[in-house]
Amino acid sequence: MHHFRIDLRSDTKTIPSAAMRAAMAQASVGDEQLDEDPSVNELVARVSTLLGKQKALFLPSGTMCNLIAVLVHCRPGDEIIAADNSHLISSESAGATALAGAQIRPVPAERGIFSAEQVAIAVRPQKVNAPTTRLIHVEQTVNRGGGAIWPIDVLRDLARFSRERGLAMHIDGARLMNAVVGSGVDAKDYGDCCDSVWLDLSKGLGCPMGAVLAGSDEFIEAARRWKFRLGGAMRQAGIVAAAGLYALENNVSGLQTDHQKARRFADALSSHECVLVGNPETNLVFFEINSRRMNAAQLAHELALEGIGIGVESATLLRAVTHLDVSTANVDEAAATICRILR
Amino acid sequence: MHHFRIDLRSDTKTIPSAAMRAAMAQASVGDEQLDEDPSVNELVARVSTLLGKQKALFLPSGTMCNLIAVLVHCRPGDEIIAADNSHLISSESAGATALAGAQIRPVPAERGIFSAEQVAIAVRPQKVNAPTTRLIHVEQTVNRGGGAIWPIDVLRDLARFSRERGLAMHIDGARLMNAVVGSGVDAKDYGDCCDSVWLDLSKGLGCPMGAVLAGSDEFIEAARRWKFRLGGAMRQAGIVAAAGLYALENNVSGLQTDHQKARRFADALSSHECVLVGNPETNLVFFEINSRRMNAAQLAHELALEGIGIGVESATLLRAVTHLDVSTANVDEAAATICRILR
Amino acid sequence: MHHFRIDLRSDTKTIPSAAMRAAMAQASVGDEQLDEDPSVNELVARVSTLLGKQKALFLPSGTMCNLIAVLVHCRPGDEIIAADNSHLISSESAGATALAGAQIRPVPAERGIFSAEQVAIAVRPQKVNAPTTRLIHVEQTVNRGGGAIWPIDVLRDLARFSRERGLAMHIDGARLMNAVVGSGVDAKDYGDCCDSVWLDLSKGLGCPMGAVLAGSDEFIEAARRWKFRLGGAMRQAGIVAAAGLYALENNVSGLQTDHQKARRFADALSSHECVLVGNPETNLVFFEINSRRMNAAQLAHELALEGIGIGVESATLLRAVTHLDVSTANVDEAAATICRILR
Amino acid sequence: MHHFRIDLRSDTKTIPSAAMRAAMAQASVGDEQLDEDPSVNELVARVSTLLGKQKALFLPSGTMCNLIAVLVHCRPGDEIIAADNSHLISSESAGATALAGAQIRPVPAERGIFSAEQVAIAVRPQKVNAPTTRLIHVEQTVNRGGGAIWPIDVLRDLARFSRERGLAMHIDGARLMNAVVGSGVDAKDYGDCCDSVWLDLSKGLGCPMGAVLAGSDEFIEAARRWKFRLGGAMRQAGIVAAAGLYALENNVSGLQTDHQKARRFADALSSHECVLVGNPETNLVFFEINSRRMNAAQLAHELALEGIGIGVESATLLRAVTHLDVSTANVDEAAATICRILR
Repeated sequence: MHHFRIDLRSDTKTIPSAAMRAAMAQASVGDEQLDEDPSVNELVARVSTLLGKQKALFLPSGTMCNLIAVLVHCRPGDEIIAADNSHLISSESAGATALAGAQIRPVPAERGIFSAEQVAIAVRPQKVNAPTTRLIHVEQTVNRGGGAIWPIDVLRDLARFSRERGLAMHIDGARLMNAVVGSGVDAKDYGDCCDSVWLDLSKGLGCPMGAVLAGSDEFIEAARRWKFRLGGAMRQAGIVAAAGLYALENNVSGLQTDHQKARRFADALSSHECVLVGNPETNLVFFEINSRRMNAAQLAHELALEGIGIGVESATLLRAVTHLDVSTANVDEAAATICRILR
Repeated sequence: MHHFRIDLRSDTKTIPSAAMRAAMAQASVGDEQLDEDPSVNELVARVSTLLGKQKALFLPSGTMCNLIAVLVHCRPGDEIIAADNSHLISSESAGATALAGAQIRPVPAERGIFSAEQVAIAVRPQKVNAPTTRLIHVEQTVNRGGGAIWPIDVLRDLARFSRERGLAMHIDGARLMNAVVGSGVDAKDYGDCCDSVWLDLSKGLGCPMGAVLAGSDEFIEAARRWKFRLGGAMRQAGIVAAAGLYALENNVSGLQTDHQKARRFADALSSHECVLVGNPETNLVFFEINSRRMNAAQLAHELALEGIGIGVESATLLRAVTHLDVSTANVDEAAATICRILR
Repeated sequence: MHHFRIDLRSDTKTIPSAAMRAAMAQASVGDEQLDEDPSVNELVARVSTLLGKQKALFLPSGTMCNLIAVLVHCRPGDEIIAADNSHLISSESAGATALAGAQIRPVPAERGIFSAEQVAIAVRPQKVNAPTTRLIHVEQTVNRGGGAIWPIDVLRDLARFSRERGLAMHIDGARLMNAVVGSGVDAKDYGDCCDSVWLDLSKGLGCPMGAVLAGSDEFIEAARRWKFRLGGAMRQAGIVAAAGLYALENNVSGLQTDHQKARRFADALSSHECVLVGNPETNLVFFEINSRRMNAAQLAHELALEGIGIGVESATLLRAVTHLDVSTANVDEAAATICRILR
Repeated sequence: MHHFRIDLRSDTKTIPSAAMRAAMAQASVGDEQLDEDPSVNELVARVSTLLGKQKALFLPSGTMCNLIAVLVHCRPGDEIIAADNSHLISSESAGATALAGAQIRPVPAERGIFSAEQVAIAVRPQKVNAPTTRLIHVEQTVNRGGGAIWPIDVLRDLARFSRERGLAMHIDGARLMNAVVGSGVDAKDYGDCCDSVWLDLSKGLGCPMGAVLAGSDEFIEAARRWKFRLGGAMRQAGIVAAAGLYALENNVSGLQTDHQKARRFADALSSHECVLVGNPETNLVFFEINSRRMNAAQLAHELALEGIGIGVESATLLRAVTHLDVSTANVDEAAATICRILR
C-alpha cells in the first residue's frame, strides 16, 4: 500500500473533510430500503431536481448505476452503442454483458465523443439474426478522452436521433458536475438529453462513496428492483448520503479550481520537450513521455519514491487527476519533479 | 413513512449510536478498491480471523454476499440446495437465479433446518439433462424459521457430506452472531463447516450498512472480481467499516440481552389465549393470532396508531424482532398493548 | 450401446417407418430461415390450427420449445410455478434458469396436477425483494405423474386464474396428443387454456425429431428471434417437417392402441404379487418392485439380457412406455418375462 | 416468398439431391441422445478424424456450434477477440453475449483476418475491473471478408500466441471445406490450430441442416451438456446425419467447381465499367455498383423479376454465392443480366 504526499492518481482518492465527517456524524437516518431514511430521501430529491428527472435512487457506486441502467433499458441480445474508449467497455468488468446480456458496439470516437451520424451507421438493420440496437451510452466527461466535455449540441443531436429511432439514451455522469462547471451548461440541460443519468459523489465532490441514478418514475421503479437484486440496498445509508448533501452544497464550485490546477499542471509539463500533453478541458491530464531512459511505469516509480502518485495508462501514457486534496503548490511540485526526472 | 416509538419490525432498524457515529467520524480511510482503506482492511482481517477463514471482503449488503457466493460457487445450470423457507428463495429478488443462472432446489425444513440425509435425496443423479447439484445453502439463524439456530452437529454432518460429494457449502450469516451468542458455539466452528460464510453488520450489531464475506484466498479473489462487476466496490468505505469495528468490539454481548427481551416478549404473549407462539431461540418472535375481530394487518395497524411497529407475515402471522433500540420496558409495553387490543 | 428387441424405455425410441421415410424423401423443401420451406410452412399452419393458435414455429426439440417459451414470457428474476415432479425442473439441464434467469417455484402435485388454489398460495406478494410470479407451467401428459392427463376443467380454472392475475400460462405438450386421444378433449380446447403450447413429434407420433411451438402472432415473433439466437434455425428443415405432416395424418389414432397396450401391460404386472402398479391413463406405466433378490437396475439388466429395454427411475421404480414399435405380443412377452424374473 | 430460377443469395439455398435423399431414406437410425444413432455416430467419428480432434458433436446449426463453444470456453465477464466484420458479432442475434455473458472485442480486420500482433494489443490487462480476455474467434472462410481464406501461417501464429497466453482459440467453420479445397491445406492442419472447430453441412456441402462441432474429449463432454440445455439434442437425427455422410463422400470436390464459377462470375462483372469487384478466393463474390439510376436493392429487384436471386449487403454492395444448384451457364446468365440492367 502506498501513501502519497501528493496523490494525482485519481479524484476518487479524496478523503472526507472534517466538515463532511461532521455532517455524516449528525445525519438523520432510517431504513432506506423502506424509503425511511430522511438524508437519502433529501439527497435523491435534490439530485432529481438538479438533473431535471422525476425520481432518483441512491446506489453504492457509479458502476452499479451504469449496470442498472443497462439492466432496465436492455433485454438479453440488445445492443448498446458506446465510444470505443468508454469506461463501460474497459473498466466495469464487462458487467453489462455478463449480467444484462447486452452486446456493446464500440464506435471509434476521438476524445470519446461521437455524432448522431456515427450512431446512424452503427444502428443494426432490423433482421431476426441481428442484435437489436437499444441504447446509446455517453460518458460525461470522458475519462479516456482526457476529460473532454460532450458539447450540449452534440448531445441534443443524439437525443433527437434516439427519440426518432426509439432508442434509449443514458449518460454516465462519473464527472458530470465537472462538465457542468467546465461548460457553464446547466445539469438539467444534460438531463433533458437522456432517459437516465447519474452523478458520482465519490470523485471530485469528495464523498467517501455513492452515486445517484435519475430517470422517470417508471425507470426508477424498475431500477429499484435491480438495486435490491444486486445487493445495493443498504439500511441507514443516510450516513453516507449526508456527505453527498454536504458536497452538493459546498464542493461543486471547487471543481473550477480543480480544472485550473489541471491546466496549470499541463502547461508546466508542455514546456518540457519530452512531454506531449493533450489539452485538458476539466480535471484530467493525460501525457505521453518520449524518453530513452524510462517508460511510464518507471517514471511513476520514481515519482512514488518522492511521495507523488500518478496513473500509468500504457508504456508511454500517464494520467494525472486534480482534486480537493491536491493544492496548486502540490501540482507545481509534481510537474517540476516530473520535468526533473525526465531531464 | 412511519415513525415508531417502539420499532419491532426488524433489527435492521437500529440507528447508529453516538459512540458509533464518533467512531465513523474519526475513521482512517483510503481507497478500498486498491485495498488502501485501513479501516476496511482491519475489519476484513478481524472477521476472517473470527470466522477462521483465510480472507474476507467488505460488501454493501448481505444480499450481495449471498449473490456473490453463488456467482463464485456455481456456473449457469448448477443447482443449490436450500431450505424451502430460506431468505435466498423468497427475499432476494431471485438474484441467484437471475444473475448466476443457478436453479434452487427447496428442501422442506422445519424451522429451516435440514439434514445430510435430506440433502442426499435432493442431490441430482449425474445425467446430462439433469441440473448439476453444486452448493448447499444454510441460513444461520433461520429468519422464517423463527430465528432457529442450526446445531453445530447438523452443520458438521452437512459439511462432511458436502466434502464427500464434492459440493460447496455456504452459510448465510445474516444473524450469525446471534447464533454464536445463543448457542455458545465459536464463530470459527461455524466457519469450519463451510467454504464461504458472511456476517451482517446492519442487523443486531447496529451498524448503518455492510456485511463481510469470508472464505479461502481463492474464493475471495474470485468474489472480489464480482464485487467490482456488481458495483459493490466503493471508495473510502472505511467510514462505514469503522462502525463494524466498533460493533464487533461493543455490540456482540448485547445480542444476549436481545434474546432475553425476545423470550420475555414471547412469554408475555403466550399467557394470552388468543396468541400462539413458537419458541424463540434468538431475537425473533413469530406469533399467530386467532381472533374473530381482526387479522394480522389490522393488529399491526392498531399498534401503529400507538407508535408500535411490528411485521406482518401473513393474514394471521406476525413477527417481532428485538434489538439495541428497544428496551425491556418497550417490549413489555408492546406485549401488553397487543394483549389489550386482542382482548 | 444396446439393441433391444422390445424397447419399452421410451416412445422417443420409435424408428421412422418406410412410409414416413418416403414422405421425407419426397418432401418439398426450401430455406426455413426465410420461411421458404413449403413443408415447414404447411406443418406450422396445421399445428397452429390444431391448437387454435395464431401462429407456430418448428423447432428441433421439445426442450427448446419450453426454453423459448420461458425466454419470451419471463425476464430475469421472474418466477415460474410448476409441479415439483415436472420435466422442466429435473430433466432440461436447468435451462430455464441458466439461460432465462427464471426461478422455478415447485408446487407439490400428486401425479403432477395442481389446482388454481395451490397456485394462488404460490404466487409471491408484490414486494421489491420478492421474485415476480410470471408464468404457470403445465405438462400434458405428466411424465413423472405416470402419464396422467390434466383434466380440462382444472386447466380452465388455472387459465381463468392466470388471466385474472396477469400471469402467462404455458403447456408443455410432450405428449399432448396422448392427452387428446386419451381424454377425448379437442387439442384446441387445451390450446385455449394457455398463451403458449407445443406438440412433440418425436415421441408417440414416431418422427425422428422436432416439435412445434404455438402461440399468438406476437409470441411467435419473439420466439422466432430466440430460435435464431439459440441456433435452432435450420435450413431445408422440410425434410423432417414432412415426417411431422405424415404423423399428424397417420399416427394420431394409433396412440389409442398405445394406451391399450400400456393398460394390458399394467394389468399383466398387477396380477403379480411383487409388483405395485399405478393406474396408467395413457402410454406410460410406472411400477415399483418389492423384491429381496434384486433392485430396479438389476431387473433392467436381466431384461436387457433377454433383449427387453425398460427405464429405471430409482432403486425400486421402473418405467415402461408403449409406442408404435412395440406390439401387443411384445408387451405380453415383456410382462411375462418380468414376472418370471421376479418370481 | 420468392422462387428463383438462379439463386445466388446463398449456398444455404441448396436443395438435397435425389441421391442424398435416398441416403437419408435408408439411414440406420437410433436415439442420438443416448449415442444410439449409428449414422450420427459415424458422422461425428468421421468429422473428428477429418479435423484431428478427439471427439465431435452433431448439432442442428452452425450458430449453435458457435454459441456452445463460447458457453464452454467462457464464463460471464470473459472477453472474446473477433474480427469486427465477423458473423458472430453481426448475425447470431448476440447469442454469445445474451446467453454466455461474454463481451466481444472487435478487431479491425481487412477481409476479416487479423494477426497475433493485433491480438496482443487487444488482450486486456489483468485488472480486477477489466474484462478477462479468454477466447480468440476466427471465421474460416470469412463471409463478410469476401470469402477470404485465413492463411495457415497466420492461424499458426495465433495458435502459438493463444497457447502462450492461456487463451482458447475457436474456428467458426461455416465454410471450412471451402478453405481446405481453396488453399490445399489439410482440414486437420486447421484443426491443429484451435481448441474447437466446426464444419457446416448445410452450405456448400448441400445438406438440409446440421453442423458438427469438434474438440477434445473434455470440451465435447461440456458441449454435450449445453447441447441438451439449449434443446439441440434430437432423437433419430441419423436421418439428417446421413446427408452429412453422403456430402463428405460426394460433395467436397465440387466446392472447387463452385470457386471456379465464382471467379468466372467476378470476371464477367469486372469487365463492366459500373461494377467494382473484390477478388474472390472461394465461392463468395461481393461487388459494389456505382450507378446513378439504381441502388443495390433496386438491382436485386430487377434481377428477381428475371428469376435471379442475389444478396443485398448495403445501398451499393451486393453478394453472390455459387453452389451446387447453380451451373456455369446460370452464372454466365446472371452476370450478363446484371451487366445489361446496369448498362
